[in-house]
Amino acid sequence: MTKPFTTLSTHIAWSCPWYDIRQDEILRPDGSPGVYNIVQKAPSVWIVPVMTSGNIVLLRQYRYTVDDWCWEVPAGGVKEAQTPKEAAREELHEEVGGHSTNWTSIGPLYTANGICNEVGHIFLAREVELGQAAHEPAEIIEIHQKSIAEVLTMARTNQIKDASSALAILLCQPYL
Amino acid sequence: MTKPFTTLSTHIAWSCPWYDIRQDEILRPDGSPGVYNIVQKAPSVWIVPVMTSGNIVLLRQYRYTVDDWCWEVPAGGVKEAQTPKEAAREELHEEVGGHSTNWTSIGPLYTANGICNEVGHIFLAREVELGQAAHEPAEIIEIHQKSIAEVLTMARTNQIKDASSALAILLCQPYL
Repeated sequence: MTKPFTTLSTHIAWSCPWYDIRQDEILRPDGSPGVYNIVQKAPSVWIVPVMTSGNIVLLRQYRYTVDDWCWEVPAGGVKEAQTPKEAAREELHEEVGGHSTNWTSIGPLYTANGICNEVGHIFLAREVELGQAAHEPAEIIEIHQKSIAEVLTMARTNQIKDASSALAILLCQPYL
Repeated sequence: MTKPFTTLSTHIAWSCPWYDIRQDEILRPDGSPGVYNIVQKAPSVWIVPVMTSGNIVLLRQYRYTVDDWCWEVPAGGVKEAQTPKEAAREELHEEVGGHSTNWTSIGPLYTANGICNEVGHIFLAREVELGQAAHEPAEIIEIHQKSIAEVLTMARTNQIKDASSALAILLCQPYL
């Protein structure tokens, strides 16, 4: 399928260290002009970590954006010159001190395709061994271990409200 | 649980008709100062529409943000002075010309809680009757009907890449 919009111009309207706002002048398929603003952000990774014990490592994390504590799987941004898998290894290590040599790439998702270009890459990490986490000062994180059955129930019953974390868990289910 | 950050100041750093960028000066739990930027957006609704025939209505929609065609369920923003359910009724009507008198509220999700405060409210609409859609000019949308089994397979196998749509479908599964 072809791209139905024509881009006439593009510029960065606002910027911060985590994302830019890109503003495009466009022509719609009917020829009418418009403006599209895109939150332009590097890809991210979400990792479902299954330990050798069979438990899944879940985070309970305070999110300032929504002023709420959220159940999530480890996640983070892909840095420049990193592959998604390299970022996934790094995030698993930073967030829960985890290591794995058994990785499965589950696929991509779009977190918020109405406003943002972010692509989330989902990984399943098996045989995870835990060490010391190295949290950034803005991250308020508790590390929990729960059985696969309990985590699947949490994802299915809307107890995991971070959409990407819940979807990552449900997409990993055939491999659990 | 209490809020672990202290907000020192807040202002709107950038604005467009769809969202604002709110910039807060904060103190982290360790007392160190920082800045948090929040994409501040009205809540949205995602509707899983099941027809009297038993089929689910799915959209295939071009998303300029990611330059891709995406399978999705009907979705849209909650306007001021609207309840999420009123917005869901309106979006179902606008996007697929649909009506339903059999609604189930499935619950909330956070679409992108690392950067954005958006809350998505998921609804299941059963016994949907289709009429004429009324698309906005920026929306490039095809309307499809697929069996429940096919839609569940699409959601489970990462063919539905809009995370909120895929999760909405999987959360509705016990009711389908």
